[in-house]
Amino acid sequence: MHALIVYSHPEPRSFNGALKDVAVETLQRLGHSVEVSDLYGEGFDPVERPEHFPERTAPHTFAALTEQRHAYNEGTLPADVQREIARLERADLVILQFPLWWHAQPAMLKGWFDRVMVYGGLYSGSLRYDRGYFRGTRAISSVTTGSPAPAFSRHGRGGDMATLMWPTHCSLYYLGLEVLPPQVTYGVQGGGLSYQAEKSFRAQLEADKANWARRLEGLENETPIPFSGWDDWDENGVLKEEHPLRWRL
Amino acid sequence: MHALIVYSHPEPRSFNGALKDVAVETLQRLGHSVEVSDLYGEGFDPVERPEHFPERTAPHTFAALTEQRHAYNEGTLPADVQREIARLERADLVILQFPLWWHAQPAMLKGWFDRVMVYGGLYSGSLRYDRGYFRGTRAISSVTTGSPAPAFSRHGRGGDMATLMWPTHCSLYYLGLEVLPPQVTYGVQGGGLSYQAEKSFRAQLEADKANWARRLEGLENETPIPFSGWDDWDENGVLKEEHPLRWRL
Repeated sequence: MHALIVYSHPEPRSFNGALKDVAVETLQRLGHSVEVSDLYGEGFDPVERPEHFPERTAPHTFAALTEQRHAYNEGTLPADVQREIARLERADLVILQFPLWWHAQPAMLKGWFDRVMVYGGLYSGSLRYDRGYFRGTRAISSVTTGSPAPAFSRHGRGGDMATLMWPTHCSLYYLGLEVLPPQVTYGVQGGGLSYQAEKSFRAQLEADKANWARRLEGLENETPIPFSGWDDWDENGVLKEEHPLRWRL
Repeated sequence: MHALIVYSHPEPRSFNGALKDVAVETLQRLGHSVEVSDLYGEGFDPVERPEHFPERTAPHTFAALTEQRHAYNEGTLPADVQREIARLERADLVILQFPLWWHAQPAMLKGWFDRVMVYGGLYSGSLRYDRGYFRGTRAISSVTTGSPAPAFSRHGRGGDMATLMWPTHCSLYYLGLEVLPPQVTYGVQGGGLSYQAEKSFRAQLEADKANWARRLEGLENETPIPFSGWDDWDENGVLKEEHPLRWRL
């Protein structure tokens, strides 16, 4: 198996950095090959904008999807986007390693979706969902939060974690990826702790790293999150009237 | 009333640009003052990173929240962040104008949250939710989508719109803002249409602009989305056992 870790944190000595290292070491120990997209380290530009398309097909008005499709077809996509696509195409497993900032992906990772997942290349009207470009490839998010777990439970004030992850999971499935349940490490905070609190916090982080390593060992046997697909939808992309999910949701 | 429009689109001639203009014109016509944060036009950098903090309190390891709090207290926040905070402080109404890209805010807008909403200044452990910094200020998202409305309905393949907006709404409420239901304009696509399709598409966009203008006229009388608050939560930030919402959700 070949894994791609898309790693989005500005500080190599962060806990996100440690979880990325744990994944590299664990997967390599299991005999897999691993590649890392270090978005901060490589200076990735997460902003989709006209400057990325010097040879525009529509010079007057910038429409991102129009230029993405044109550049994909002409082979003139920006070098960093081409590199990320090549990395994705090599992967059997994609791991997104990021901290939850403002209830979502950091801008750096969000822009990796905005720029790399090009229209007309990695998806189109007929190349989506269970007919998506990356079908057969697995994906998992490894997320850290500042607040402890109860805040992100069903009735927690931070917002239910399953709901907060929904946009990310929708995007991964849209691309055809098989999405595994996320690995969420709660209560990762920096600084300002007393000596005792710091000590018990460090112990907890070690346990969290071990949990992640253990999970990675069994990842190939996990069942992806079930999504509905083309056969389940009517012509408007809505679950058919008789679909059993309409009664369960 | 003074309104701030946080506008996140790379193309002034886009439909997002038109909706921004409609909001400016409508609010001014009603006698309100309006300011626009044109994130693309002003070259905002959406990536939170060490380079924004030349005078670090923790030079060895970069922790964004630690540096945000330090810079806020020392008055050394980056100039663009100080400008955005001043704009927010002046506003009675905040409008986020953006296209839904990959089921969420574009990286540009997401990074506006990541960088501008500084820890230790605009929020802290006790300065959140209904005790948040911006309580009394209203906020609304005006969002455009590529796919038509059915795809974002309860059983649509695009993902339920209320769920896709949840992270944004959580973030706005976390800051104390009163969140109004979003204005969603569906099916905004560029290019590739036949003459007849283009004509009916243009007519639809005019109707969408008029809808937005009409809604803005009555915005002051709208009821914000209800959120639970500090009085409703136990010490872990979870709805109290006896809270009526536990039975309804």
